[in-house]
Parts: sequence; C-alpha cells; structure tokens
Amino acid sequence: MPDALDRLEHIIRQRRGTDPASSYVASLFGKGRLKIAQKLGEEAVETVIAATAEPAKLTSEAADLMFHLLILLADADLSLDDVRAELARREGVSGHEEKAARPR
Amino acid sequence: MPDALDRLEHIIRQRRGTDPASSYVASLFGKGRLKIAQKLGEEAVETVIAATAEPAKLTSEAADLMFHLLILLADADLSLDDVRAELARREGVSGHEEKAARPR
Amino acid sequence: MPDALDRLEHIIRQRRGTDPASSYVASLFGKGRLKIAQKLGEEAVETVIAATAEPAKLTSEAADLMFHLLILLADADLSLDDVRAELARREGVSGHEEKAARPR
Amino acid sequence: MPDALDRLEHIIRQRRGTDPASSYVASLFGKGRLKIAQKLGEEAVETVIAATAEPAKLTSEAADLMFHLLILLADADLSLDDVRAELARREGVSGHEEKAARPR
Repeated sequence: MPDALDRLEHIIRQRRGTDPASSYVASLFGKGRLKIAQKLGEEAVETVIAATAEPAKLTSEAADLMFHLLILLADADLSLDDVRAELARREGVSGHEEKAARPR
Repeated sequence: MPDALDRLEHIIRQRRGTDPASSYVASLFGKGRLKIAQKLGEEAVETVIAATAEPAKLTSEAADLMFHLLILLADADLSLDDVRAELARREGVSGHEEKAARPR
Repeated sequence: MPDALDRLEHIIRQRRGTDPASSYVASLFGKGRLKIAQKLGEEAVETVIAATAEPAKLTSEAADLMFHLLILLADADLSLDDVRAELARREGVSGHEEKAARPR
Repeated sequence: MPDALDRLEHIIRQRRGTDPASSYVASLFGKGRLKIAQKLGEEAVETVIAATAEPAKLTSEAADLMFHLLILLADADLSLDDVRAELARREGVSGHEEKAARPR
C-alpha cells in the first residue's frame, strides 16, 4: 500500500488544472505560487504555536503543513521524491562528516 | 528499502539524548522545544522565499523544512507516521465530502 | 499632532475589553494571545512575500504588520513606548560599540 | 526630541551603502533584499514564540522585529512615515466604517 504522503501527492496533482471551484486544492493552484507560499508560511506559524503552546494540536498542524508543502512542490513541478533524494544525498555526506567528527 | 524520510527520522531519534556536542541534531534537542520550533519557523520562511523568488533553491529548502519538522515531531514524541495517519484519516473524510459535493 | 502609530495604539487600547462583535480589534482580543500571535506571524509572511515578489504591496503589508504588533503588545500590557525605550537603550550600547569598532 | 523609531531609521539610512564590514546594518544591506526579508521573517517567528511562550522576551523581540522592518523599508526606499500615512489613511476609512456600524 502506498505511503499516505504519496497518495496525497497523487490526489493533489490530479486536482492541478481542474476547475478552481471543484476543490480547495484546485482553488489554491488557481491563486498561484505566491498565495500557495503564503499558505505554507501560515501553516508553519500555526505549527510553531502548536509546538510551543498547544502540543495537542501539533499532529494536526504538522499535517496541514505537509499538505501545503506538497501543493507548493507540485506547483513548482517538484515532488516529495525530489525532497527524499535531497535528504538521501545529504545522508551520504553527513555519514562522512560523522566519521570525520568521530573521536579516535 | 525504507523511505528516506523514515531513515532520517530513525537517525534523528537515535541522536536524541546523545551528547549535544556530538551532532547538530543532538545540540538542537539540547536547546529544547522553543528553539526547535524557532528553527522550523525559520526554515519555513526560507522555503517561502525560495518558492516566490529563488525556485532553484526550493528542493533544498523543502528538505531543510522536512528535516526540522521531523526533529520537532520527535521532540514531542510524535512521528511522521502520526502525520501520515492524520492525513489518511482526512482522506477518508474528504472522500465523503467529495461524494456529498458531487453533482447528481 | 500625535504620531499615527500612537493614535492607532490608543484606538486599539480603547477597543480592548469591548464587545467582540463591535470591531475587528475587539474580536481579536476576544480570541486571545495565541490567535493574535498567529495573525502577527501571518502578516509577517505577507510582508516577506511582498518584499521579495510584490514590492508595490510592501507599504500596505508593513502597515498590517505594525497594526497587529500593536495589538499583540497591548494584549501583553506592553506599548510601542516600551519598544522605543528598548531601541533607545540599545542605541546607547551600540554607540559604545561603534566607538570601540572605529578605526584609529 | 525625535522619536526613537525615527532616530533608528535615520541611523539605518546613514549606514546604507557604507562598507558591509563596518556594521551589522551595512552587512545586511550588502546581502540584499531576500536576506533582509528572511531576517524579518525570522524575527517575526521569535516574536510569535515570545508572545505565546516567553512573554518576558516580548519587548526585546518586538524591538528586533521593528529594527528589521525599518531596514526592509529602507532597502525598498520606503520609510516608517509611509507606513504611518497608510495607517492614517485607513483610520479615516475606518472612522467612516465605525459610523456606519454604529447602532442608531
């Protein structure tokens, strides 16, 4: 069964280019990059506040943040796999750094 | 092979509680929740700026944002799977909403 | 004639504690500190986007940011004069630093 | 005696175009609009966290936020007086709205 993040990304991409009146995702794509970036920033603010003052809301706010990050990536023709590849690339680099930093 | 996000989350959790001098992740856990949340907010700001003015940096900034989100979740004893479960739960709800909204 | 910022601060304080249905400011005070802080964060995101991608909107977004900063300060029983005093205090310190850093 | 905000704005403008090595303000102008906007966003995140979780730091964080807002405005050839004028303009509009909303 595919990852819930990948399933969500698939749904988001399907809605791209559909009638803005048909869904929240389509309407956000219709508003364009600046508005999508603004929403991501707003969800990050809510995640910060949840983390510092309302931890019971953190999972929900993190889900909102992920959701809007996937929309922002899709709007830029990028995907979560591009982010995974970047993190995997760093993991390799970081592995070397860890070795270099290891006490002998 | 596990997802790069899950591998990263595993590494992050391993570093929790280790010597703050041993790694960036351990030092961030050592500084506590407010500082971790601050870093997440800062990475979100950089993601917003990349998305609106420097798209070539977007993958890298999104990776930084994901990295710090995983640290913030771990600090709150939450995981990416909790976020996946929340998104899957909404997917179900959203499926019903889609049906309700469907023209007959 | 008093400064427009001070006039606005005066109006904001007058509305504190009035019926939340009577004005936007009163309704925001009614929602409490976390919501006011969230709005400040959102206005900052809009200011960042204006500055980087829509400079024609910067004055308006900066005004929104100032407006919500004054509300946040008032909610914490602080004022713009407290911020002015803090900046003046640093000015003194910074003056000394400037002297110390001055080439001889 | 001029307002501490206006004095600070005057100092900021004087440092614009001076050697980036000579002061923090000059170095920030040297890094350009995107970096200045990023710093504003970061200071807003710190203000949000102070307001929600560390109120004793709020005055200091609000001062940091104002300081970077003045730098951002100066970088865009705008001033605090432009923001004051925008707020005064709204005050007029808002005055009319208040009258319209007033119960008879």
